[in-house]
Parts: sequence; structure tokens; C-alpha cells
Amino acid sequence: MSVTQTFTVTGMTCGHCVMSVKEEVSALPGVTDVDVTLESGEVKVTADAELDRALVAAAVADAGYSVKE
Amino acid sequence: MSVTQTFTVTGMTCGHCVMSVKEEVSALPGVTDVDVTLESGEVKVTADAELDRALVAAAVADAGYSVKE
Repeated sequence: MSVTQTFTVTGMTCGHCVMSVKEEVSALPGVTDVDVTLESGEVKVTADAELDRALVAAAVADAGYSVKE
Repeated sequence: MSVTQTFTVTGMTCGHCVMSVKEEVSALPGVTDVDVTLESGEVKVTADAELDRALVAAAVADAGYSVKE
């Protein structure tokens, strides 16, 4: 099974920010793909199973950004 | 001898950008200190001798940014 969830991340301003978010979220267990759109802040996370939102938010926070409520 | 020159760099948006510029400019021969202010784009470069502006501009370009004319 594969589940894709979409989050909106605030605070990203450049390609380095995108890479940081990708790196942290990709390291979550079960994650197979992370697609980030800088302009909109949209982060699409594909994983083997549904991810806990708090887990994703924590990874985004580790990168230095926030998931929009 | 020590010479400090100030350049204005455009395009930096976050701390990662600052680090990229610092890294590239610090690698120039004779450079002993690089101080970057994100908000103003001000880059203060201290070196053993005066640096050619084109050399600094090339290092900034390598990082992906531009020195303002």
C-alpha cells in the first residue's frame, strides 16, 4: 500500500530550505517519496502507511520550518 | 596587513544562503574572515591583501548569488 498526504509548510524561501525539509521528512519510517513545491509550500509525502501528522510536523520543525494548521 | 572590503550581495533569503556565500568566499586565497548580514546583503570580507572584485563576484556567483554593481 502507498499513501500520499499533503502538508503546507511555511517559512521556506529557497532551494536550500526545500532540501532541508526533504531530507528530514524522507528520514521518517516508511517514507518512499517527498515532493516539495517552494512557491506554495506544498509538501507531498508518500509512505507505506498513513503517517501521524505530529511526526511529520516534528520532522519539518527539525528542518527549521512549520506545518501550517 | 589586513584589508576589509564590503560588498552587497543580492538573492540571499535564508541562513542556508548565508552559509553558502560564506563558504565560497572564505575559500578565496588570503581570506581570513567573512561576515554576512542576511537582511542587508552586506558581505564584509577580510583578507591579507586587497581582493580583486571580480574574484569575489565569481565566488558569490559559484554560491548562486550576485554582487550588486
